[in-house]
Amino acid sequence: MSEEKYIGVFDSGVGGLSVLTKLLVDFPNESFVYLGDTARLPYGAKSKETIKKYVERNINFLTSNYPIKAVVVACNSASSVLHDLDLPVKTIGVIEAGADAALSKTKTNHIGLWATRATVSSNEYEKELLNLDDEAKLTSISCPTLVTLVEEAGADHPLLEAAFDHYIDKIKDDSEIDTLILGCTHFPFFKERLATYLKTKGLHMELADASEEISIQLKDMLSGSLSLKKNLEDKVLVTDEAPHFKDFISSVLPKKYSFSFLKVDL
Amino acid sequence: MSEEKYIGVFDSGVGGLSVLTKLLVDFPNESFVYLGDTARLPYGAKSKETIKKYVERNINFLTSNYPIKAVVVACNSASSVLHDLDLPVKTIGVIEAGADAALSKTKTNHIGLWATRATVSSNEYEKELLNLDDEAKLTSISCPTLVTLVEEAGADHPLLEAAFDHYIDKIKDDSEIDTLILGCTHFPFFKERLATYLKTKGLHMELADASEEISIQLKDMLSGSLSLKKNLEDKVLVTDEAPHFKDFISSVLPKKYSFSFLKVDL
Repeated sequence: MSEEKYIGVFDSGVGGLSVLTKLLVDFPNESFVYLGDTARLPYGAKSKETIKKYVERNINFLTSNYPIKAVVVACNSASSVLHDLDLPVKTIGVIEAGADAALSKTKTNHIGLWATRATVSSNEYEKELLNLDDEAKLTSISCPTLVTLVEEAGADHPLLEAAFDHYIDKIKDDSEIDTLILGCTHFPFFKERLATYLKTKGLHMELADASEEISIQLKDMLSGSLSLKKNLEDKVLVTDEAPHFKDFISSVLPKKYSFSFLKVDL
Repeated sequence: MSEEKYIGVFDSGVGGLSVLTKLLVDFPNESFVYLGDTARLPYGAKSKETIKKYVERNINFLTSNYPIKAVVVACNSASSVLHDLDLPVKTIGVIEAGADAALSKTKTNHIGLWATRATVSSNEYEKELLNLDDEAKLTSISCPTLVTLVEEAGADHPLLEAAFDHYIDKIKDDSEIDTLILGCTHFPFFKERLATYLKTKGLHMELADASEEISIQLKDMLSGSLSLKKNLEDKVLVTDEAPHFKDFISSVLPKKYSFSFLKVDL
């Protein structure tokens, strides 16, 4: 049996908990340490150089403080710089997973993307899609307001439909687009509400989020080093402890989920 | 004649440029150095301890690198911690100025506040108002989405009215409120549009923003050390150089304003 190790999940904030929630279901025997760099969020508005510095510092923090066998980078802005970094652990980024998920759904090969500014201007989704299918076509829209709305009231914000209207307007005339990538880990929280909205508006678009594909890739990556039972205590770490993050964390994680919550300085 | 020194203007990001713009008009002989801590914005979602650490570091950076005679803290979240810090230079915070401005407008003594989460939960506006008038009453609403909308499209975002609706709903039934403090330096950018919106809705509310009051306080503070003519080159410094900040900076500063733009590491 292999030595007990954590799977790390890293995000700039608390949006990545949408990925952790999915992993908890798919990997009941694994132990998780989640790190949200809440002191420095949002990465989405920062330059590539700054994001690289933060990602490196955060992943090094995880591997120097915990036994870690892999890190899921559950933050699109952070995933977009992974190729440029030399990291001490195997990583899976949400961008590659999101691109895979979209290609498995699209029939027209024309895909839409909603993401933060940093993710859009990195062009990483486009590179990843073309890497996997050289006939894929992407139309990208940066949607910073959707991030704030989710942080303000989860999937319940009354302004969400007005914001959907605003951002869908920019792509709906292109009837070729049949799949929309939710390219920010905040967005799966409103996936159902967006699906209802699209149905009401008579728009036919599949929603692609990365979490399903991440589970598949993680199973491949860890074959041989998967745990047989959960042996370590799960941890949720944040770099800044603003009160509303705690509320958000307890509102989105499963009710009976047991973990220790820590603020770390880095 | 006193030795030539700068007036510093500090904000977590670029919202404080609304204050700088006003100061450039009121103090044509002064030289300014503006510091936007864009690598760490928004302060509004961070804890008090983290904000204190950042404010201290940023103001020390200004005073160790430039001759500075006073610093205007043009960020509500940062102003809310000034009383707790021992700083090497005289400061004016937007909160005290905003409270003054509101009291000079209100007739009912019942004031509304739109601000970030950190500003609202600091209770600093309430403390400041009660300090100045022990019969003042404040109703505070945190409006994070308004910050994002301004960052996304200045005063032109098509979602602004929907967001005004959302946040005004929380206070409009209280007919006693006759003055609304724009308690975030992003908000003066949409002041005219909000005034039009209120008029259209038949809501009678005066808008209080801090910049006018800041000019008055700064004149008092610097009496005797005001410059006779502009002798230093104005500087706009940011800690992270995301491309959309540059666009925002050139779109809000006066067209013929000459300054050097620098990215600084701290």
